[in-house]
Amino acid sequence: MLRNSIRVLLQVEKNVHTRQNSNIAFIGLGQMGARMVNNLIKNGEKPKVYDVVPEAAKSLKGAIPCSSLEEVVDGSKIVITMLPNGKIVKDTILGEQGILKRVAKNSLVLDCSTIGPQVAQEVFNAAQESNVRFLDAPVSGGVVGAQAGTLCFMVGGAKKDCDEVEPILLHMGKKVLHCGKPGAGQITKLCNNLILGVTMIGTAEAMNLGVKLGIDPKLLTDVVNISTGRSWSSDTYNPVPGVMENVPSANNYEGGFSVELIAKDLGLAGDAALGINAPIPLAAMSHQLFRTMITYGLAKKDFSVIYKYLEGAKVQ
Amino acid sequence: MLRNSIRVLLQVEKNVHTRQNSNIAFIGLGQMGARMVNNLIKNGEKPKVYDVVPEAAKSLKGAIPCSSLEEVVDGSKIVITMLPNGKIVKDTILGEQGILKRVAKNSLVLDCSTIGPQVAQEVFNAAQESNVRFLDAPVSGGVVGAQAGTLCFMVGGAKKDCDEVEPILLHMGKKVLHCGKPGAGQITKLCNNLILGVTMIGTAEAMNLGVKLGIDPKLLTDVVNISTGRSWSSDTYNPVPGVMENVPSANNYEGGFSVELIAKDLGLAGDAALGINAPIPLAAMSHQLFRTMITYGLAKKDFSVIYKYLEGAKVQ
Amino acid sequence: MLRNSIRVLLQVEKNVHTRQNSNIAFIGLGQMGARMVNNLIKNGEKPKVYDVVPEAAKSLKGAIPCSSLEEVVDGSKIVITMLPNGKIVKDTILGEQGILKRVAKNSLVLDCSTIGPQVAQEVFNAAQESNVRFLDAPVSGGVVGAQAGTLCFMVGGAKKDCDEVEPILLHMGKKVLHCGKPGAGQITKLCNNLILGVTMIGTAEAMNLGVKLGIDPKLLTDVVNISTGRSWSSDTYNPVPGVMENVPSANNYEGGFSVELIAKDLGLAGDAALGINAPIPLAAMSHQLFRTMITYGLAKKDFSVIYKYLEGAKVQ
Amino acid sequence: MLRNSIRVLLQVEKNVHTRQNSNIAFIGLGQMGARMVNNLIKNGEKPKVYDVVPEAAKSLKGAIPCSSLEEVVDGSKIVITMLPNGKIVKDTILGEQGILKRVAKNSLVLDCSTIGPQVAQEVFNAAQESNVRFLDAPVSGGVVGAQAGTLCFMVGGAKKDCDEVEPILLHMGKKVLHCGKPGAGQITKLCNNLILGVTMIGTAEAMNLGVKLGIDPKLLTDVVNISTGRSWSSDTYNPVPGVMENVPSANNYEGGFSVELIAKDLGLAGDAALGINAPIPLAAMSHQLFRTMITYGLAKKDFSVIYKYLEGAKVQ
Repeated sequence: MLRNSIRVLLQVEKNVHTRQNSNIAFIGLGQMGARMVNNLIKNGEKPKVYDVVPEAAKSLKGAIPCSSLEEVVDGSKIVITMLPNGKIVKDTILGEQGILKRVAKNSLVLDCSTIGPQVAQEVFNAAQESNVRFLDAPVSGGVVGAQAGTLCFMVGGAKKDCDEVEPILLHMGKKVLHCGKPGAGQITKLCNNLILGVTMIGTAEAMNLGVKLGIDPKLLTDVVNISTGRSWSSDTYNPVPGVMENVPSANNYEGGFSVELIAKDLGLAGDAALGINAPIPLAAMSHQLFRTMITYGLAKKDFSVIYKYLEGAKVQ
Repeated sequence: MLRNSIRVLLQVEKNVHTRQNSNIAFIGLGQMGARMVNNLIKNGEKPKVYDVVPEAAKSLKGAIPCSSLEEVVDGSKIVITMLPNGKIVKDTILGEQGILKRVAKNSLVLDCSTIGPQVAQEVFNAAQESNVRFLDAPVSGGVVGAQAGTLCFMVGGAKKDCDEVEPILLHMGKKVLHCGKPGAGQITKLCNNLILGVTMIGTAEAMNLGVKLGIDPKLLTDVVNISTGRSWSSDTYNPVPGVMENVPSANNYEGGFSVELIAKDLGLAGDAALGINAPIPLAAMSHQLFRTMITYGLAKKDFSVIYKYLEGAKVQ
Repeated sequence: MLRNSIRVLLQVEKNVHTRQNSNIAFIGLGQMGARMVNNLIKNGEKPKVYDVVPEAAKSLKGAIPCSSLEEVVDGSKIVITMLPNGKIVKDTILGEQGILKRVAKNSLVLDCSTIGPQVAQEVFNAAQESNVRFLDAPVSGGVVGAQAGTLCFMVGGAKKDCDEVEPILLHMGKKVLHCGKPGAGQITKLCNNLILGVTMIGTAEAMNLGVKLGIDPKLLTDVVNISTGRSWSSDTYNPVPGVMENVPSANNYEGGFSVELIAKDLGLAGDAALGINAPIPLAAMSHQLFRTMITYGLAKKDFSVIYKYLEGAKVQ
Repeated sequence: MLRNSIRVLLQVEKNVHTRQNSNIAFIGLGQMGARMVNNLIKNGEKPKVYDVVPEAAKSLKGAIPCSSLEEVVDGSKIVITMLPNGKIVKDTILGEQGILKRVAKNSLVLDCSTIGPQVAQEVFNAAQESNVRFLDAPVSGGVVGAQAGTLCFMVGGAKKDCDEVEPILLHMGKKVLHCGKPGAGQITKLCNNLILGVTMIGTAEAMNLGVKLGIDPKLLTDVVNISTGRSWSSDTYNPVPGVMENVPSANNYEGGFSVELIAKDLGLAGDAALGINAPIPLAAMSHQLFRTMITYGLAKKDFSVIYKYLEGAKVQ
C-alpha cells in the first residue's frame, strides 16, 4: 500500500517534471510513429504526441497526448513528424494551421516521412523563411526496425542540426547518417529502395526459374549467397517460402515492407529521376510490376510476394 | 649442388611418371582454359592439351601439347572442355570426329563452358548412350578467378562422378558445388548471373540518380552497403569510378566480365525460361539493355559500364 | 443457255483433269491446315492430305486421305506443310523418313508454318542439297482468314518458284507477297507480329487508363482512330468489350489469335534479333507480359485479353 | 505628309474600333501559338495577343499586341492559352497577377497546353470559384497542323461551353471533340500519345530487325501496312529514311514531334496512371527509352529517330 503510494507520487512528480521540460513533439502515430515514440519513452523522453486519430495519442503510455497541432507544437523545441505522404507533410507543416505558423523561432522540425527530395526541399525553404530549422530524415528498417529501435536515419540539411538531434534519433534507431544538403536524406533513401525493389524482383525471377527447372531453392540460395548474385534480398530476406525463417516469405508474406510502399517509393524515385533525365529502366519496370500486383490484390503483402506472383500462384 | 641435382632428378622422375600416367585431357585454351591448365600444372598435373589454335597448346609450359582431338583424348580418363558456346561444345563432343567417338568407355567428360541446360542435357544423353560419364560444370569467378585458382564449379550430373573429379577441380578452384541432375550446374550458373545482371543495372541506376542529384557516390555506397540495397554489385564490384580500387570501374571498365558475356548468359537464361514459361521481366529488359550497349560499341567493356551508359557518357 | 452448258462442261472437264493430275500434297491438318485444304478443294483441287492424327485426313471431303508421309508425298510435285513449330517441320522435312527422302527431284516444298528464319534457311539448304525447291511461306489472317480464304502469304525463296505456286496459294488466300531470299517470309511475318504484339499492349494500356479515368471507350476509340494513335489494334480489333462487334473482345476473348501464339512469335522474333544484336526492348517486354499471362491461365484466350489482364479482372 | 497623317488616323481609328470589339485574347505565342493566331487572323478575327517575349506579340501582323497579362485579358470574353507546361499554366491563370484575377465574370478561358488531367481539374475548380468558365482543350497535329489550321481539339468541360467556342476553334483546326468532364481533353490526348509512343518504338524495332536481316524497308512497310501491324507510325510517319517523303525521317529527323515532347507526354501519362494504379508497362519503358535518348543528345529530334537509336547510329 505504502509502496503503491510512493510509486504514484514518484510517477506524478516525474510527469510534472517532464511536462515542464519536455520539448519533443511527435506527430503521426501510425505503424511506424507509435513504435518510435515508445522507444523515445523507453529511453527516458516524455514526448508530446499528436495524431489525427485521437485514440492513437491516448494509447501511448508515458507520452503526453495532445488534441491539436497547436497544442503539441506549443513550447516544443524539436518537432518530429512521421506521416504517410508528401501532401500530408505539406499540409501539416506548411498549412494555414500548420507547424511553421506555431513553432518558436529556431526550433528544429525533423520529418521522418518518405516524401521525395522535391517536397523536402520545398518544406526546407519555407521553414528557412520562417526562421525554423528543418531536416529531412527518412528511415530504413520498417516496422520491425521501428519496434526494435534499430532504424537507420538518412538525414539531409545542416550538419550541425543533424549532430544536435542525433542523440534523440539514437533513442529510436542505431544509425544516423548525414547525407548532405536539404533533400539528401530523401534522395539516399530512394536510391537504396530503388536498388532494393529491382534486386528483389531479379532474385525472385532467378529463384522461380531455378525451382521450376528442378533446383532445390535452399541449394540455389546457398550458391548465390557465396557468388556474384548475393544481396540482402537473397541472404537476409529470401523470397522463397521454406528457405529462411523469420522473414515474410515464411509467414505467407505477412508483415514486412508492403507492395504498396515499395511501389510508392519507386514512384517517388521516378519523379526524382524525371527532373534530371536520369534513365531508370529497371526501376520503372519494377514500379509497373508492383503496381500490377496491387491491381491483383497484393497491395498489403510483403513485397517479396513477387516470387509468388511470378510463379502464377494465388496468394490469399 | 647436390641438392639441385636431387631436385632435378626428382623433377625428371616426376615428369616421366606423370607423362606415363597423365590421364587428363584439356580442350579449349582461351582466356579461361589456359589459366585453368596452368593451375593444374602448378598442382602437379601434366595434362594433355588441345586447341583449334595450335600455338595455344604449345605455349603452355608443363602441359603436353596435342595437335588433334583424337590425340588429346587418346588414353585420357578425364576430359575437360572449356569452350565459347553450346554449338562448339556439341561439335567437339558429339561431332563425327568428336570426343564421344574417341574416348574410352566409362571415361568422364566434364564441360566447364556456359551452354545452358538444354544443350548440357542433350550432351549428357548422348554420352550415356556411348557409356561415357558426363558432368556439366560451368564456373564463376571469371578470368581473375581462373588466374588465381579460385573458381567456383557448379556441377550437374551424378554425385559420385562429381566427388571423383572434385580433387582435380580444386586444383583450379576453391569450391565444387553439386547442384543436382544433368544440366543443374548450368541452371544454377544462369540463375546466379541473371540476378547479377539485374542487380548491377539496378545499382547503376540508383548510383547515377543519386550522383546527378548531388549525393557523393562513396557516401551513397556506404549507406547502401549497410542497408537493404546491399549486394555484391555495390559492396564488391561498385560500378562508379572512384568508389573502389581494383575493380573494372577504376580502370576504364577494362578486364572483368564483358558486356557480351553477360548478354550471352542472359540470352541463355531467356531460352531456359522460355521452355517452362517462367516470366523474367527484368532479366529480359536487362538483356535488351546490354544488347543495346553492344550496338553502341561496348561489347568488350566490363558490364559495370552500364553506369556510364546510363550517364550518357562516351566510353572509349 | 448454251453459254451455261459450256461453262458447266468446262468446269466438269477442269475437275476431271485436276482429279487425275492432282499433284498437291498437304501435310498438317490442324485448325489452319484443314481450313486451307477445304479452300483448295472448293477451288477445284484434289489434294492428297496427311496428318499424324489419322481422323483429320479422313474427315476432309474431297481430299485424298493418306496414312503416311511416304504415301502423301509419293507422286506429288507440290508439297505444302502447315505445322505447329520448327522442330516438327524439321522432323517432317529433314527426318530420316522425311519429305526430302521421298519427294521427286525438282519438286517444290512450301512450308506455311511460322518457324523463324534460321530454321527456314536450314531447311532450304538441306532441300537444295537434295535438288528440291523450297519456299518459306508463313501466313497472316489466322483461323478466320484460313476459313474465308483470305490469308496473306509472305514468301521467301526464289521469285520464280513463288510465281509458279502463286495460283495455288490464291485458292487459299488473297495475297502472295514475295519478300526476298530464303527465310524472308519468316522474317517479314515476325516483324509484322512484333509490331502487332507491342501495339496491342500499348493500345490496351491507353484504353484501360482512359476508361479508369472516366472516358467512354467508344469515344476514346473514335478519337484515337482519327489521330496518331490509330492502328489495326484500335480500328479493327479493339480490345475493349463493347466497342466493336465481331471481334474476340466482344466474345469473352474466344477465338482469334491466342496469347500462346503471339508469345511464340515474339519468342521467335527474339531469337532472330539475338543473332544480329538488334535491340527489341518493347517486344521483349511484350513477350514477358504474354508469358506472364500464360502463367495466369490465359494461354488460349485471344491476345487482346491483355486489356482484361491490365484491368486486374478475372477472365474465365 | 497628308498621306501619313491619314494613315495614322485610320490606324488609330482601326485600333480603337477593334479594341472595342475584339473579345479574343491569346496568350503564349511560341511555335504553336503564333501559328494558331495567324489562322485566327486569316479567318477574320483580330485577337489581342501576349507573350512573355514582347517581340513575339509585335511580329504578328493583324493582331493587337499587348504588353501585359492585364492588358490582354482586359475586356476579353474568350481567353485562349497555349503554354509549355502545367506550372506555367498555373502561374498564368491562377497566379497573383493571373487571368482569374483580371477576367470578367462568366468569361471563358480555354487552355490548349498539354498539362495532364490533375492540373486541368485544379484550374477548372479555381475558375469555377471565380465564376469563370474553363475548358481544357489540348491539340493534336503539332506544328504542321497548327500551320495548316488542321489541328484536332480534345475538349474537357461543359458541353455547351465547348459548343459555344467551337466556331472559333475551327478557325485553327478541323476537328473539335468534346471528350467529357473537366480534364477529359487532357486524358484523351495523353491516351492517344501513349499509344503513339509505344507503337512508334515497336514499329522501329521491327523495321530495324527486318532491315538488319536483309528485308527491303519499303517492302516490309508495304506488307505491314496491309497487315495487322499497320498503324499511323508505319503508314503515315514511317521512321525509316527513304521509305516516305515529307516526313521527319526523310529530313534527318528535323521538325515534327520532338523526343522531349513525347517524353513529356509519357511522363504526364505516367502521373495520371499512378493515381489510379493503372499498369502501363510498355509506356513506362517507352518513357525510359525516350529519356535515355535525351541523355544521348537527341532531345530536339523528331521522336521517330528511335529507329536510328536502335540501329546504334550516330545522329547529328
